[in-house]
Amino acid sequence: MKNATQSKSTRDAILDATDILLAKFGYKKMSIQDLADEVGIGKGSIYLHFSSKEEIALSQIDRMIGRLKDELEVIAAGKSLPGDRLAKMLRLRVIYRCESVHHYSQGINDLLAQLRPKLLERRKKHFNEEAVLLSRVITEGQSAGEFAAGDPLVLARTLVTATNSLLPYSLSAYELGDLKTIESEIKTVAKLLIRGLRK
Amino acid sequence: MKNATQSKSTRDAILDATDILLAKFGYKKMSIQDLADEVGIGKGSIYLHFSSKEEIALSQIDRMIGRLKDELEVIAAGKSLPGDRLAKMLRLRVIYRCESVHHYSQGINDLLAQLRPKLLERRKKHFNEEAVLLSRVITEGQSAGEFAAGDPLVLARTLVTATNSLLPYSLSAYELGDLKTIESEIKTVAKLLIRGLRK
Repeated sequence: MKNATQSKSTRDAILDATDILLAKFGYKKMSIQDLADEVGIGKGSIYLHFSSKEEIALSQIDRMIGRLKDELEVIAAGKSLPGDRLAKMLRLRVIYRCESVHHYSQGINDLLAQLRPKLLERRKKHFNEEAVLLSRVITEGQSAGEFAAGDPLVLARTLVTATNSLLPYSLSAYELGDLKTIESEIKTVAKLLIRGLRK
Repeated sequence: MKNATQSKSTRDAILDATDILLAKFGYKKMSIQDLADEVGIGKGSIYLHFSSKEEIALSQIDRMIGRLKDELEVIAAGKSLPGDRLAKMLRLRVIYRCESVHHYSQGINDLLAQLRPKLLERRKKHFNEEAVLLSRVITEGQSAGEFAAGDPLVLARTLVTATNSLLPYSLSAYELGDLKTIESEIKTVAKLLIRGLRK
């Protein structure tokens, strides 16, 4: 682990290359050969890690969500008021995803169109995991008397649902390019939702 | 206007046929010839009304949204408490759209994938129009002292954004098939949002 570049696994290198090529070519035009060239390995080595281009793209998304969840976990475990933590978490779940595909420009339509059914399946799992993290903070806020009573997990799922329309999946390439507007929208939505949670 | 079927315009007949064929074949497989056969007119007559298959599909969606807005307008002009009217409107904007594509089953992925960029453009217009209707009720609720102060149009847009993830666009065919779950989710989201609006 002397050198971060050297110690990066081949799997991670392939996913990094995927991110670069998705931005450059879009999903449809990206080939396994392009990926192998970008990483500087043979095509066969890619198939040692992934069975298809689809699996690579989905794994790249999974990795991004995994990193997002780590950051959400840190905020959830923080010491500020539960309402403030929730607002931060809701903002991050939107902005993190938007920033992760921000450089894809037009390529996002292509990617989403091709992977739509599989993506929707995965999203369910990701949303549930995010809801669990949010529910912890809601429980804290209820114990502290900041929030009204109610099933924390149901409320957390409601927060997820009510902010999901700001994720890249539901935005046009044009809207995705406008992070400032997204920032201001998630702020307003989160504020109204957290007001709704209060006693 | 003696006979509803006779008096129905050709344009409407084409859009009715579109709805039937989208459900049956999906967007990709539906041809202008199929549409002409379904209506019982020549292919040329279709081109008198629409320039392309894409325009037909988008017009069919526009017509559905037009009807939804008529119904939203009726609720907005009602006499019940503003909070109750808002809850009804938010429910309707979700359920109406879901029901309108409910019979498409798998065909919805195909339709959304093909039309994504154009659809996202139109959605903006539709969402703005819905926000205007919602803002009227919010203004009433503020005057009546039911809701806290705040720009009614900004708040209305927030309600739209926070319920948009339950529209067909963001749901898988599987989820769309489960109207009961969607019903319960929009109810929970609307409740939290309207709590957030109150004084």
